[in-house]
Amino acid sequence: MEIVRAIGDVRSHLAGVRKAGLRIGFVPTMGFLHAGHLSLVEESKKYSEIQVMSIFVNRIQFNDPKDFENYPVDLERDFALACDAGVELMFVPDEREMYRDRLAYVDVDVLTDNLCGARRPGHFRGVFTVVSKLFNIVQPDVSVFGQKDIQQAVSIEKMVGDLDFPVRIIIAPTVREDDGLAMSSRNARLSPDERNRALAISRSLRKAEELLRSGERGSEAITTAMRKIIEDSNPTSIDYISVVRYADLQFADVIREKSVIAAAVFYGATRLIDNMIVDMDGGGPRCLY
Amino acid sequence: MEIVRAIGDVRSHLAGVRKAGLRIGFVPTMGFLHAGHLSLVEESKKYSEIQVMSIFVNRIQFNDPKDFENYPVDLERDFALACDAGVELMFVPDEREMYRDRLAYVDVDVLTDNLCGARRPGHFRGVFTVVSKLFNIVQPDVSVFGQKDIQQAVSIEKMVGDLDFPVRIIIAPTVREDDGLAMSSRNARLSPDERNRALAISRSLRKAEELLRSGERGSEAITTAMRKIIEDSNPTSIDYISVVRYADLQFADVIREKSVIAAAVFYGATRLIDNMIVDMDGGGPRCLY
Repeated sequence: MEIVRAIGDVRSHLAGVRKAGLRIGFVPTMGFLHAGHLSLVEESKKYSEIQVMSIFVNRIQFNDPKDFENYPVDLERDFALACDAGVELMFVPDEREMYRDRLAYVDVDVLTDNLCGARRPGHFRGVFTVVSKLFNIVQPDVSVFGQKDIQQAVSIEKMVGDLDFPVRIIIAPTVREDDGLAMSSRNARLSPDERNRALAISRSLRKAEELLRSGERGSEAITTAMRKIIEDSNPTSIDYISVVRYADLQFADVIREKSVIAAAVFYGATRLIDNMIVDMDGGGPRCLY
Repeated sequence: MEIVRAIGDVRSHLAGVRKAGLRIGFVPTMGFLHAGHLSLVEESKKYSEIQVMSIFVNRIQFNDPKDFENYPVDLERDFALACDAGVELMFVPDEREMYRDRLAYVDVDVLTDNLCGARRPGHFRGVFTVVSKLFNIVQPDVSVFGQKDIQQAVSIEKMVGDLDFPVRIIIAPTVREDDGLAMSSRNARLSPDERNRALAISRSLRKAEELLRSGERGSEAITTAMRKIIEDSNPTSIDYISVVRYADLQFADVIREKSVIAAAVFYGATRLIDNMIVDMDGGGPRCLY
């Protein structure tokens, strides 16, 4: 695995790959890799021959400077894991390399109004801007995002479509611990007790699936049942439990088309998110989480 | 010259060109071509083997719907001129092809506050968004913009740098009629009398050069002299006569570094712009207009 820190080195390295007619798969990350990230590389291999990963903790997408400063970092471990997973080029720029100047930006309307966007002003603009930069630097054929950050994944899909980026976006299913907790770098910050209580989030999604299978289509009935389960786990606070249409991430009263049921909950100072895609094609609900 | 209307056709046409190792030059236009546009193709040939042009009247960069509706169109003449100039691929999408949906956008802070940006809210966002789309569709090695639209050219240069678009931006000098009038599709709308009065704009730039050469560095002294010349031509209104730094297009009281002197003036309903780049390298002022 080659590790490069300069934009020019990424370009010169990949020019040859592209000339050889090999397809480039790209997984952008903020590091502190876990099985979730590595599953994105596995997914990427289905569509491409050369795997590129970036690790860059993108300051401009953090609302809280403390959250940025506390973001866990372990590059040596990351490099070993990525190498084992088959990553051939690792791009690890520093902030100076990525943001010599910062006047231009990319944003997406509507899709970022709700869910995480509502309470994190500027967060998604930071994400879209850095992902656009990375796409322009790596010029991948395919790029894989995790379902866990569903608002990010869906709105990057939208960004790529609207701005005609020549890259195919794949959304890969959330990877979970054996007990159901969605994998996240933030899980490392949970105390054993918090971690145990946080299982209520995935439990609430299973409850939502149960209700959907029994014919329930009303968003309020579903989120009320979910809220009860999560409240019983004594969370520090509930940010949101919402049902939105997949197409535009706007609130839906009734689940009729492809939708997303998503939750964000604080345990202590740690904000955890999880979600389920509800596919209504072929009549019955198919739940992906 | 091949004429294509679908994004997919541009991509498939240029994939072969790219594979053959030929460099792609790109000149985006809104059509109604004149010698100014053709000079951009000439400039592009210095850096690339294959010349691509687009013609797309981009509704979202017009503040006034009437200005959009009245924008002159003559595609047959454009195609003949572009073909003669050596354009090999002409991309002429309709609005449906370019804007299936329109939630994502690109914008640049600071550089669009002054000059034309001050009175045309949303104009530059429309320009940056369509240019980003076109760059992602054509993926050119080099793209040429005219100095006449200096705020557009400088802020696209900035956008490309900040967002790491893999394209080199060239700014080509303004092409003028023999009498000094900067070429523009809008000149066709001027009455003979208006056209004659409009010569005051380029005359005022020559006056600015004269003052700079005689040692004047104060912006107010220079713009006051320019304003007198333009007011004597009985314009319908003067939008601005300004001195800004080239680096960030912010107003400068004194010309110390590379700067732009720019004017926008109405004659009848037609708004004309012109400008001069003042290069201060090597001591003396070098004026490009």
